[in-house]
Amino acid sequence: MAQKPSIPKGTRDFTPVEMARRNYIFNTIREVFGLFGYRAIETPAMENLSTLMGKYGEEGDKLLFKILNSGDWLKGITELPQEEGGYVPLTYKVSEKGLRYDLTVPFARFVVQHRNEIQFPFKRYQIQPVWRADRPQKGRYREFYQCDADVVGSDSLFNEVELLQMIDEVFRRLNVNICIKVNNRKVLAGIAELIGASEKIIDITVAIDKLDKIGREAVNAELAANGLTSESIAALGPILDISGTLDERLEQLSVLLAGSETGTLGVKELRFVCSHAMDLGLRAELDLDVSLARGLNYYTGTIIEVKARDVQIGSITGGGRYDNLTGVFGMPGVSGVGISFGADRIYDVLNALDLYPDSALNATCVMFANLGENEAVASLALIKALRADGIAAELYPDASKMKKQMAYADATKVPFVAIVGESELADNTVTLKNMCTGEQTTIPAEKLFEALTQATAGH
Amino acid sequence: MAQKPSIPKGTRDFTPVEMARRNYIFNTIREVFGLFGYRAIETPAMENLSTLMGKYGEEGDKLLFKILNSGDWLKGITELPQEEGGYVPLTYKVSEKGLRYDLTVPFARFVVQHRNEIQFPFKRYQIQPVWRADRPQKGRYREFYQCDADVVGSDSLFNEVELLQMIDEVFRRLNVNICIKVNNRKVLAGIAELIGASEKIIDITVAIDKLDKIGREAVNAELAANGLTSESIAALGPILDISGTLDERLEQLSVLLAGSETGTLGVKELRFVCSHAMDLGLRAELDLDVSLARGLNYYTGTIIEVKARDVQIGSITGGGRYDNLTGVFGMPGVSGVGISFGADRIYDVLNALDLYPDSALNATCVMFANLGENEAVASLALIKALRADGIAAELYPDASKMKKQMAYADATKVPFVAIVGESELADNTVTLKNMCTGEQTTIPAEKLFEALTQATAGH
Repeated sequence: MAQKPSIPKGTRDFTPVEMARRNYIFNTIREVFGLFGYRAIETPAMENLSTLMGKYGEEGDKLLFKILNSGDWLKGITELPQEEGGYVPLTYKVSEKGLRYDLTVPFARFVVQHRNEIQFPFKRYQIQPVWRADRPQKGRYREFYQCDADVVGSDSLFNEVELLQMIDEVFRRLNVNICIKVNNRKVLAGIAELIGASEKIIDITVAIDKLDKIGREAVNAELAANGLTSESIAALGPILDISGTLDERLEQLSVLLAGSETGTLGVKELRFVCSHAMDLGLRAELDLDVSLARGLNYYTGTIIEVKARDVQIGSITGGGRYDNLTGVFGMPGVSGVGISFGADRIYDVLNALDLYPDSALNATCVMFANLGENEAVASLALIKALRADGIAAELYPDASKMKKQMAYADATKVPFVAIVGESELADNTVTLKNMCTGEQTTIPAEKLFEALTQATAGH
Repeated sequence: MAQKPSIPKGTRDFTPVEMARRNYIFNTIREVFGLFGYRAIETPAMENLSTLMGKYGEEGDKLLFKILNSGDWLKGITELPQEEGGYVPLTYKVSEKGLRYDLTVPFARFVVQHRNEIQFPFKRYQIQPVWRADRPQKGRYREFYQCDADVVGSDSLFNEVELLQMIDEVFRRLNVNICIKVNNRKVLAGIAELIGASEKIIDITVAIDKLDKIGREAVNAELAANGLTSESIAALGPILDISGTLDERLEQLSVLLAGSETGTLGVKELRFVCSHAMDLGLRAELDLDVSLARGLNYYTGTIIEVKARDVQIGSITGGGRYDNLTGVFGMPGVSGVGISFGADRIYDVLNALDLYPDSALNATCVMFANLGENEAVASLALIKALRADGIAAELYPDASKMKKQMAYADATKVPFVAIVGESELADNTVTLKNMCTGEQTTIPAEKLFEALTQATAGH
């Protein structure tokens, strides 16, 4: 009985057209990473569970895909657990490895394991899939790519400046209009300190992070419910009300946070990063957002988030500065700063705005029709010369009916079909059909490269 | 307690230097695939076990990495198996998914699942990792990449010709001297038929496949042990003894196999493929090897194997024509032909011969030393202009001691260090140090691009 083929839910096949689109995005990101001196690493899909467990919270532990031990995985297990949830402890007896859940923990593990081979500051990028046993839904997959760039072992704020430039350059190349929002964890700490609620910094930031979505009234209600006094809530008002240009808002914030040393340092860091990035020239809009928190418990300095301006979608890139990346693996005091491009959401944005250039999608430039063995052999000689000049060319392998061959060229979106028939063979010519305009011309065989490059340039 | 970090045995981290080397290989293969009109697809790392099981033999089933079901994977299991090997049937109750074992079965599944979106002939390539729970040993990993190109839905032997051209072009670009050995399953069938042992074709080919390693005597002994008569063994002699040029050996083979229709067809196919490939021009040596079998039960026509000429290592690329790729998934009659580049062995060959061009390994072209905030800001402006011209450049992020900065440049093998200090800032100049020669020159800032491109071209 033949099986009806399918793939696990939440996973995807990528067809040639989808791959061309995705590679356009990945290649753009990769090129920019490289131009900025970031260097690629890769880590295994499987990590020891001891590396992964406890790094993503209790929920994360559940969402790790675990690999069943090879061979007799039941060996040594003599009885089934009787209690509710008894499968959980048993899991770690039958499974020692899991699929990576993100690129950050494997990176931290990598830095510690290879500490003696690495030159610090270490600027690495990593573009690899990750796996999460999340409930699949629109836009959420069980296998998806992350594109991370981090520099560890340097406290310089010039790293932040360069990360903003990198974000700007990637989206400039992709032709996506973006707004880069920045904040600083020290500003958030300063705010909490000034309104007399330092110990409630998490509640405060969780609440104000929702400002855009739920509005001021609801935020205030949530703060009150979390035990903030009305004085504190009132003191928060002017901070959330700062307005004007980025410079003006930084100035207002600087005055408002003057009483907090931490807050003042945060404003100073923001000023450094924003002013240098803007002086160097950004195409993107750069915006201060004091309500931006993003994984507060993780970031310790700059916080970055990117939104597309022309498509309603969540954050398409994010990042920030963190402390002690590698402490859990026995190497304390390594701080870093990094960003992560959300490839799947960027893909959705480019699809929505149809921003793919033709050049990124056309795989083959010219397909030679196949009119029989002699004609095919002559075509292969021409094809060989074209390929040597960097032009992707192919021969339709079978001498099928012309209609079938043209349907193939049409479906695979080949821009040109070349025909070498009996008369072309005699004249040493090629008939070239432009599949876009339908135009057909016969040219000397030696002019083929010229004709294709001219036509492609005008495409 | 800090964990001592490690990775699962048989898996590897790739450092920036290793990644640069590997990407040089992958990019070369990918570019050649693209030039020949093959288009990329990707499939998920996880496949349903029902897709994978039974496709790789009993041993293969054991070597599949299986994913433990999410949530309560013990649900419904009320007792532990008591019998020896009882874990095997239980495996398929606690696990529904496995990691892909090769790219061929997922490709077959893909073709069937997307049959209505695909235009045949379908020329696809796929470069992705695969996982096998093999015992790790030198050169054998539990995670490794395969690089496959196949065309399905076309019987034309021009596909074989193009695959030989592709192999030739990949290794020409990588500067590896190779020998491409070809054979044809129909020739093997013809041999078995002529020596009166058609039903023993597998035993015969398994035995003669070892000719290189164990010699004629031992092969004959193995054939006798498998029940071949001395007449049969004697009849095999002249076939294994053919000699001379490729053309001469094809001619001798043609005479020897004249009595077998299948064998004659095999010789005809070999002639077509070899003569057209050679007429188009191959850099590689092309060799007929009637003892070449490679997964005989799989291939039905052309068989291809590639060996490096300057390094003792197994096959570095292989492939052939097969029938009925997709029959097991309910779509009969799809034949194809393909090749698979063994990236890990090619990596070993390039390492052994040190064949990496500098341009493939140098990530950053120039590092700017950091002499303080003003100098760094001026450097970033120059860096921005260089990057816009496609030159990978970076600023050392911290104003550390020059010795530390130069050590970083040295260790990361940056070919040039640019210094913008107080006097350069005043003069609008840059001091450029060639890290290879130690030479140091001060040039006008606007000449920097020119100086770097000239120096790099002469590198």
